[in-house]
Amino acid sequence: MARSWATLGVDLHLEPAGSGGLRRGLTDALRDAVRTGRLAPGTRLPSSRSLAADLGIARNTVAETYAGLVAEGWLTARQGSGTQVAMRVPSASSASSAQRGRAGAPPSGPGLAAPRRREPGRPAHSLVPGIPDLAAFPRAEWLKAARRALATAPFHALGYGDPRGYLELRTALAGYLARARGVHADPETVVITAGFSHGLGILGRVLRGRGVRTVAVESYGLDAYRRLLQDAGLATPALPYDELGTNPMELGDAGAVLLTPAHQFPMGVPLHPDRRAAVVDWARRTGGLVLEDDYDGEFRYDRQPVGALQGLDPDRVVYFGTASKSLAPGLRLGWMVLPPSLAEEVASAKGRIDTVGVMEQLTLAEFITSGAYDRHVRSARLRYRRRRDALTAAVTERAPEVRVTGIAAGLHAVLRLPPGTEQPVVQAAVWQGLALHGLSFYRHPQSGAEPQDALVVGYGTPPDSAWAGTLEALCRVLP
Amino acid sequence: MARSWATLGVDLHLEPAGSGGLRRGLTDALRDAVRTGRLAPGTRLPSSRSLAADLGIARNTVAETYAGLVAEGWLTARQGSGTQVAMRVPSASSASSAQRGRAGAPPSGPGLAAPRRREPGRPAHSLVPGIPDLAAFPRAEWLKAARRALATAPFHALGYGDPRGYLELRTALAGYLARARGVHADPETVVITAGFSHGLGILGRVLRGRGVRTVAVESYGLDAYRRLLQDAGLATPALPYDELGTNPMELGDAGAVLLTPAHQFPMGVPLHPDRRAAVVDWARRTGGLVLEDDYDGEFRYDRQPVGALQGLDPDRVVYFGTASKSLAPGLRLGWMVLPPSLAEEVASAKGRIDTVGVMEQLTLAEFITSGAYDRHVRSARLRYRRRRDALTAAVTERAPEVRVTGIAAGLHAVLRLPPGTEQPVVQAAVWQGLALHGLSFYRHPQSGAEPQDALVVGYGTPPDSAWAGTLEALCRVLP
Repeated sequence: MARSWATLGVDLHLEPAGSGGLRRGLTDALRDAVRTGRLAPGTRLPSSRSLAADLGIARNTVAETYAGLVAEGWLTARQGSGTQVAMRVPSASSASSAQRGRAGAPPSGPGLAAPRRREPGRPAHSLVPGIPDLAAFPRAEWLKAARRALATAPFHALGYGDPRGYLELRTALAGYLARARGVHADPETVVITAGFSHGLGILGRVLRGRGVRTVAVESYGLDAYRRLLQDAGLATPALPYDELGTNPMELGDAGAVLLTPAHQFPMGVPLHPDRRAAVVDWARRTGGLVLEDDYDGEFRYDRQPVGALQGLDPDRVVYFGTASKSLAPGLRLGWMVLPPSLAEEVASAKGRIDTVGVMEQLTLAEFITSGAYDRHVRSARLRYRRRRDALTAAVTERAPEVRVTGIAAGLHAVLRLPPGTEQPVVQAAVWQGLALHGLSFYRHPQSGAEPQDALVVGYGTPPDSAWAGTLEALCRVLP
Repeated sequence: MARSWATLGVDLHLEPAGSGGLRRGLTDALRDAVRTGRLAPGTRLPSSRSLAADLGIARNTVAETYAGLVAEGWLTARQGSGTQVAMRVPSASSASSAQRGRAGAPPSGPGLAAPRRREPGRPAHSLVPGIPDLAAFPRAEWLKAARRALATAPFHALGYGDPRGYLELRTALAGYLARARGVHADPETVVITAGFSHGLGILGRVLRGRGVRTVAVESYGLDAYRRLLQDAGLATPALPYDELGTNPMELGDAGAVLLTPAHQFPMGVPLHPDRRAAVVDWARRTGGLVLEDDYDGEFRYDRQPVGALQGLDPDRVVYFGTASKSLAPGLRLGWMVLPPSLAEEVASAKGRIDTVGVMEQLTLAEFITSGAYDRHVRSARLRYRRRRDALTAAVTERAPEVRVTGIAAGLHAVLRLPPGTEQPVVQAAVWQGLALHGLSFYRHPQSGAEPQDALVVGYGTPPDSAWAGTLEALCRVLP
């Protein structure tokens, strides 16, 4: 089995010992990363001790690898400044014998999940937002629900299913969403998806098929989602962003608007009540549609959650939810609650049969109806809240110039930095083996909003065991 | 929860008692079915006793429903001929108060799985091919594998995954396919999908993106697959079919060809060795691609399975496999083994993250490596073989004019009928509450092949408990 790591903010892929030994694998991976520019000239490499610890291999293996690459001219080693990528690396031809089929692959694109083209690796530390603490996934409870669900499911549930998804799950979700998020849901208008991206892609195609040409998006958000809409043939202009959050007044001739009303991603503020009302008014007036991405609506700490916008007008709002933040992205489970006029069309666009596995659906239905989902969300909320408080306290104490914002909800905070410091801080973090995203990573390229220096800190991401170390690593790089 | 049934070969959807009672629900459903033509004038309805048994409701409820609809003029009841749909039904306006939102939905389209827009129902009897015996799904073994897999999976496996699929599963499949099907597979070139349709759709888009305009298909096959390719912008002309099976000599300017080489679906014969060689020659000569749909390659009864065509030229054949026949369609798990030159592109076309749930992938990987998959396939093969033998014996004895063909492998047989009898037999089956497909259902509309009267009998479909009754129902309608 292959191993990969991301200590330097790039993924290097290590082959098993069988195909030439760990040293050979590490040598090839590092050489390719330098050759393709994924490790830029001058980049400081982690010490052999810390890289060896990250990879769980002998320190000598790393030291020998470094020495070999220094000898080949890829790296330089100087007393006091450690090992760095050489400023002038050998020509590509001299590396050709070491070239691997995948070395030329482009580096991972940006995205909520920092998705990788390779098996996901474990960074030494990561505060990239969008992933819950995967080590806290309730494995035993999930298996218990799977066992109960499979014990009682009729055999025909295992056949080709309704493209809207398994009825038991749609029913369980309709009840849960009404209770927890104020969503007007009927099992008939719920469509189960393999996560938010799957649903957004389907809806984009349906809207384009109905003649929509433009879906407005927020000034801050995920490039991956803009691209999904663009792939469906839709333009994705940016809405203005100001101190009240996203301003949906300038929707122009957009046929729909994609928003994160409960908790703007990544800025972390709820949509102002006036603007909630305004966007629904716009939709009613123009026949437009609001796409509500409620990615982490369950996690609000200081007062009652902001209810779903969908509750204001179920005929003009498509509600999107997901198990990716409340449970785990690997489940690949999301849901849409659709206006009745769209439900059939979206189900047909999903396919002629269900494309989402029924086992997960059966299990989640049981997980919800048994109360395990509520229990898990409650306990996760408590844990994340403690982390948020620890983050706020540590930053306030150790980096008084940094302001912690957007902390009322969710699994991430926005750390406002002194002007001009975002890029150096992110760079310093990379050198420390801490994966971290700056706010500029999430800025719409055509946004008119004033660029601001900030970090988007996903404090939900590390496992509990790594949390203290990760927070310490963060504090070390803050100005 | 809604209930549905398909005793008459049409799905009637029953609402829960809460929304007006079972009698009301059944009345509405039957009235809508008559009004929309799904139940044709003259159709004989099942006796109130047998319909009540199918639905698990009181016989009186059905009897009262029938009586009410007779009174309204939708049905007629005559001594000796039971209850029938009236030859002239009330005008639509008189039914408007009973109209339901979904009553106007088109009837289910054809397809391997007879997919339904509603929750799948249980026909009284079904011999529709393409579904294994779902009652024999190894639930306990599957849960055991899930428990073991989840106990040992690293937590990062639950994050956003590699779009090619989980590495452990790709590795397990590469080993299994090499051993069981003679496939040349490397985990790097395996892509996990949510079943064959998912993979075919992706590949169609990739081929179209590469400039392919035509993918030739077989004279007999599934309309759903042709449509998937057409949706990707590809033409799907039919290849000739003769006594040696599909004839791939006339590929013209096709850029690819979709075949079922191990077991033609639905005709049930393997592709002739000369033609296997010829199609690979064609691919090499023209740079074309062969898409090998190996949907039930595991189930061969009388001698060694026919190896995968992919083994002849892994650079020119895309191999497609699925767990839908060997385990259950509801798992939504399939796999492609791709020529190295296509693997990256297909993975990218699948998405930037994995869209298939990791729990199923972890579980199937464990199921294969622990040997449970082989054990299950062996035991299923034995069971299906017994059914095949029983089918052959019963038809030979009770319908000597009918010839049983295509029985060396798979989960279905082709019953050749006397000329002109296919439609009447299928019609008679519907009246008996037996879901059954004629061969014409699978015939390419532009096929030049001489139409033949035959039935495609999916003897794998019924649960064991219903098998004897289903076989008896079949024999009753044979000429």
